[in-house]
Amino acid sequence: MSKFEIPKTVNPDLDIERKNASFNPDEMAAFFWGKQEIVEMKRMIEQEIYSDLDDPLTHEFASYEDMASIAIKHAVAATKKLRAIQDRINPGGSEVYPTLMGGPVGAALMPAGNPFAVHLVMFTRALKGQGTPEQYEKFGRRADNCEIIGTFAQTELGHGTYLRGLEARADYDRKTQEFVLNTPTMTSYKWWPGGLGHTCNYCIFVAQLYIDNEAKGIHMFVVQVRDEETHMPLPGVHVGEIGKKLGMNGVNNGFLGLKDYRVPRMNMLMKNQQVLADGTYIKSPVSQLSYFPMVYVRCMVAIGNALMLAQGATVVTRYSVVRRQSPIDENEPEPKVLEHLTQQMKVIPEIATAIAYRLAAANLYLLYNQTAKDISRKDFSRLPELHALACILKVSCSYDSTFGIERLRQSCGGHGYLLAANLGNLFATATAACTYEGENSVLYLQVGKILMKVWADVLEGKKLMPTMAYFAECGQMTQFPNWTGTWDCLVKALQFACVGATRVAHRSYSARLKAGQSQPVAVNNTALELTKAAELHGRVNVAGNFYQEVVNGKGKDKRSPQFQKVLENLLELHLIQTFFRHLGDILRFVRVTENEISALQVRMEEALITLRPDAVAITDGFDFHDKVLSSALGSYDGNVYERLFDAALKHPLNKKPVPDFFEKYLKPFMKENAIKAKAKL
Amino acid sequence: MSKFEIPKTVNPDLDIERKNASFNPDEMAAFFWGKQEIVEMKRMIEQEIYSDLDDPLTHEFASYEDMASIAIKHAVAATKKLRAIQDRINPGGSEVYPTLMGGPVGAALMPAGNPFAVHLVMFTRALKGQGTPEQYEKFGRRADNCEIIGTFAQTELGHGTYLRGLEARADYDRKTQEFVLNTPTMTSYKWWPGGLGHTCNYCIFVAQLYIDNEAKGIHMFVVQVRDEETHMPLPGVHVGEIGKKLGMNGVNNGFLGLKDYRVPRMNMLMKNQQVLADGTYIKSPVSQLSYFPMVYVRCMVAIGNALMLAQGATVVTRYSVVRRQSPIDENEPEPKVLEHLTQQMKVIPEIATAIAYRLAAANLYLLYNQTAKDISRKDFSRLPELHALACILKVSCSYDSTFGIERLRQSCGGHGYLLAANLGNLFATATAACTYEGENSVLYLQVGKILMKVWADVLEGKKLMPTMAYFAECGQMTQFPNWTGTWDCLVKALQFACVGATRVAHRSYSARLKAGQSQPVAVNNTALELTKAAELHGRVNVAGNFYQEVVNGKGKDKRSPQFQKVLENLLELHLIQTFFRHLGDILRFVRVTENEISALQVRMEEALITLRPDAVAITDGFDFHDKVLSSALGSYDGNVYERLFDAALKHPLNKKPVPDFFEKYLKPFMKENAIKAKAKL
Repeated sequence: MSKFEIPKTVNPDLDIERKNASFNPDEMAAFFWGKQEIVEMKRMIEQEIYSDLDDPLTHEFASYEDMASIAIKHAVAATKKLRAIQDRINPGGSEVYPTLMGGPVGAALMPAGNPFAVHLVMFTRALKGQGTPEQYEKFGRRADNCEIIGTFAQTELGHGTYLRGLEARADYDRKTQEFVLNTPTMTSYKWWPGGLGHTCNYCIFVAQLYIDNEAKGIHMFVVQVRDEETHMPLPGVHVGEIGKKLGMNGVNNGFLGLKDYRVPRMNMLMKNQQVLADGTYIKSPVSQLSYFPMVYVRCMVAIGNALMLAQGATVVTRYSVVRRQSPIDENEPEPKVLEHLTQQMKVIPEIATAIAYRLAAANLYLLYNQTAKDISRKDFSRLPELHALACILKVSCSYDSTFGIERLRQSCGGHGYLLAANLGNLFATATAACTYEGENSVLYLQVGKILMKVWADVLEGKKLMPTMAYFAECGQMTQFPNWTGTWDCLVKALQFACVGATRVAHRSYSARLKAGQSQPVAVNNTALELTKAAELHGRVNVAGNFYQEVVNGKGKDKRSPQFQKVLENLLELHLIQTFFRHLGDILRFVRVTENEISALQVRMEEALITLRPDAVAITDGFDFHDKVLSSALGSYDGNVYERLFDAALKHPLNKKPVPDFFEKYLKPFMKENAIKAKAKL
Repeated sequence: MSKFEIPKTVNPDLDIERKNASFNPDEMAAFFWGKQEIVEMKRMIEQEIYSDLDDPLTHEFASYEDMASIAIKHAVAATKKLRAIQDRINPGGSEVYPTLMGGPVGAALMPAGNPFAVHLVMFTRALKGQGTPEQYEKFGRRADNCEIIGTFAQTELGHGTYLRGLEARADYDRKTQEFVLNTPTMTSYKWWPGGLGHTCNYCIFVAQLYIDNEAKGIHMFVVQVRDEETHMPLPGVHVGEIGKKLGMNGVNNGFLGLKDYRVPRMNMLMKNQQVLADGTYIKSPVSQLSYFPMVYVRCMVAIGNALMLAQGATVVTRYSVVRRQSPIDENEPEPKVLEHLTQQMKVIPEIATAIAYRLAAANLYLLYNQTAKDISRKDFSRLPELHALACILKVSCSYDSTFGIERLRQSCGGHGYLLAANLGNLFATATAACTYEGENSVLYLQVGKILMKVWADVLEGKKLMPTMAYFAECGQMTQFPNWTGTWDCLVKALQFACVGATRVAHRSYSARLKAGQSQPVAVNNTALELTKAAELHGRVNVAGNFYQEVVNGKGKDKRSPQFQKVLENLLELHLIQTFFRHLGDILRFVRVTENEISALQVRMEEALITLRPDAVAITDGFDFHDKVLSSALGSYDGNVYERLFDAALKHPLNKKPVPDFFEKYLKPFMKENAIKAKAKL
């Protein structure tokens, strides 16, 4: 075998880790994905759909134009494959298609990103959820069938978070019973919608509705942007790509300008509000539902980003037991880098964090489904709580996964910088979630405002939402109870810190209100303290939820003692790491002695050392297919160096020994320098 | 004027900021770059060299192969331009060429990165510094003239930080008076050197020297890898590109394998150690100097990364006064996003941090030059201190700039994700510095080890190096003196926290030594506490240095009162932000009451609000040319939206209305779906 060929066997350094693990990773897989049956279905599907994929680096070496073409090819192939499986195993269901088009499976099938993503997640859902049955028949069914491809054109070049600021307008023309759509300024151009550039022929155009020049608020209009036969932009439509990005360059994000573009009255989605033929406007009766779809998307973001962090942790854990560097004892050979305590600290807490978010997101999704059922019975009581939880989880999970993945990437040294490691792409995808679907700072402030309301309720002795109940409990105590250092104590310390931060923020906020500031001005001036309180509320939720799952989780009785021990070790690490991460916030309100802090330092180091031998098995248990990881550093077989070489040799510059630029630029330059040097002598 | 044309005038929202500034940004420019004359020379050069540059997005849309060619073209042009200016203004000097090839000017000239960078920074310097005069005549002069292009081939596929682990070998053949060079394993292939792929025809090959199979340690050998006329790899040479990366894709990083490749004895660099013709080995007499060149490079990294953070802060500050979003008071129009306190907190502290690092790096460079002079007089006394400072500054500056740039990018919402913002590239360049030139965790540990020595010296009452003197001072106090909240108090609190962390680490470390662990094993087991102490030592240095520069700096008397006030506000913000960032580390060892903490919170908010009106002028004072910033969001004229549109319209997909992928993939897919749907009815 040549030294560059990828061995068919598992690298012994990785193999031994699996042999020495204390538990069976299949148990982790069932825990991590929710159920054994889900894992089995996932494996069955992945075996079927990954056999004929292009090399994932192909699009990276292509010109931007070719790359766009490759992305469309992949999206079409992915859709066909997943629909076929769905039709076979559960016709009409949605667990395979479209669910798997997002997340890890979608990333494997469409490594440059999915230009149909917004079509699937928002265009079809809005037609169904916001359209009348007739509108669904006219547009929705064709969209579901992918006879047409659409997107959701809301964000504008100059307007994002603040929806009421959108400038695009739809004027009702009573005479023709049409809406006249316009983007009257440059800043009102739609900007960002996925697939809008050159993929879609339809979109939902979000605009201010005007009847007789009177604004009626934001509404949705179905707009055809390209001819179905020729794909040429229709008259009055200015559409194109917005340019290259940090990542997801196959998504074909686009811009759209409309000039006096007319659509029939029935192209406005009219399920909840209507414009009658004579121009009479009928308002939506259910305004509190307007943010319910966003809750769903934020829940999906949290799940998606938790999985990305888990992917990153898998890659880096495997690499860290294959890579050898720097003897710990100078007389010994170079150890696996995971023997270095600093490397353990970079990798293992991210494993625990990924699990903590995975569990929190799964529980949020349960609450979402429960609330959806409540809503169908006209019970809206849990909506505010769900909203707050979805905001906070979306924010903290997107931040922690983004910066976690970057730290993991850095922990691979230079090799993490290669695209073949696939950690850079993971980062680029994860970080996008910090600014889309509700910019993180804005969401933090929304939660901060909710906490001000909660604290006011505490002061008035009102009943709190279940996930806020700890505010009343901690608020009643003048001092933190005895420090015991137990998990319960650690969660309680976080709660105490959050309540303290909320109380402090409320003090500043009330003082500003009393001084005559309006509520929104006072919110802005207190924004830093509100953000801090919101951040801590997020920590309380994730840590508290992890604690409950490990100690009292539903499936606890069925866990093997070995696996339960692993979960407890992960919980121990996560709670102590969170304690140190928020040491300042805690010490501000909770007295912890230097000895108690030092004891936690020792426990954290012990947790790392205890988890070290199981690190590979835990991440094996995340059950990511090699095609999902798509990483020379993190494949299941651990043949890191051969795979790095293999990736390098595929590089287009390596196809010929001398590149064209030598004769064109390099040689004339060097020769000219030689001639000049000679002339000087 | 069409709505997409870029106005020739400055955006009024940016213009008004400049009119309302409290000071003249030219004063900041002279302060930031060190001297008025430096700023003037910089401006003169930039005006001359930027007139004919390609669009910086061109290479982003090209195939990888074309991009490599563009990078070489740019590198050749940049070299010619800067050499011509150098020859004109100060022949034989180095302030223009090669100095400006790195840093902001180089980034403007070579937006895909510089494939000659290692040639300039390491190949030519090593030939001069490590070669004999004859060797310089033979290789160095030609390298300086760019008649040949070389690189520095040290890192291997399987070996980085730990130099002694390198596997490449050079066996001396007494008979032919040659070295036989080999990379005997796959992991011994050289991997990473910039320009090695297809640019260089020479390199310095770093290998274990063997004489009669006896290892003599790491040595450097000049190796020709490609024919000077044909550029074909020479027999025995296997060379190529290592693949696409997160950034700097024009750098042409390469791999190199050698098989029984022979070079004459005089190709080993012999200034400090020699192999005589008969195989006699003569050791270097100055081993303590081996890390001196690394100190220089780390100093350059700190300067470079401080400038990158300043660039990012400039872009985002300008964007933040043009972008309007979300009313603070619902009755008012949407304000500039910089009116939001959360945005101020994201942007203004990064401005202060960039200045703090710029000052710290400049002082480190002074110390480096002083030490270089000392060394030439055989005085090595300040070398350990310089080494520690260079390590710590490289680490903290690379980390803080990397994560700072990413936070800045996120603070632009979605638009920061576009390459046209040029914040993604800045991040990719900054983060590379976290792992090259000494991996950050390894450097932290080196400093941590030095601190263990320092603490032992404190316990023994020994004299400390000047930048460590605070360990003795704080170590003598049993308790922190009265909290006053002054700048002095804030710096002292950081010192106290660092000394506390060092003491705690030393306690753990000594206990492990006493328990019988070897020194390196005890270091590994104490690594987390050592890292924490090292991190805090870095903070002390940067914050303390900033404080000294503002309060007692050399040019202080010449500063206008307005500018001095701005510097003081920046210092105030930086010190309080650092306090909150390390609140836990401080509260662990320093008693600060809740009221005192709240007072600092108020001061931090006030500092933000005070600095807000000067934010644009301060970043204007960083004096970055538009070609350096290369950002649609951050150009001097603030015509953000027109420039975003301009960048989008250049996109290759926008050159024709319908992309090829429509007929090829999309249309057949949609039509087929329509036919199937009909068949089902």
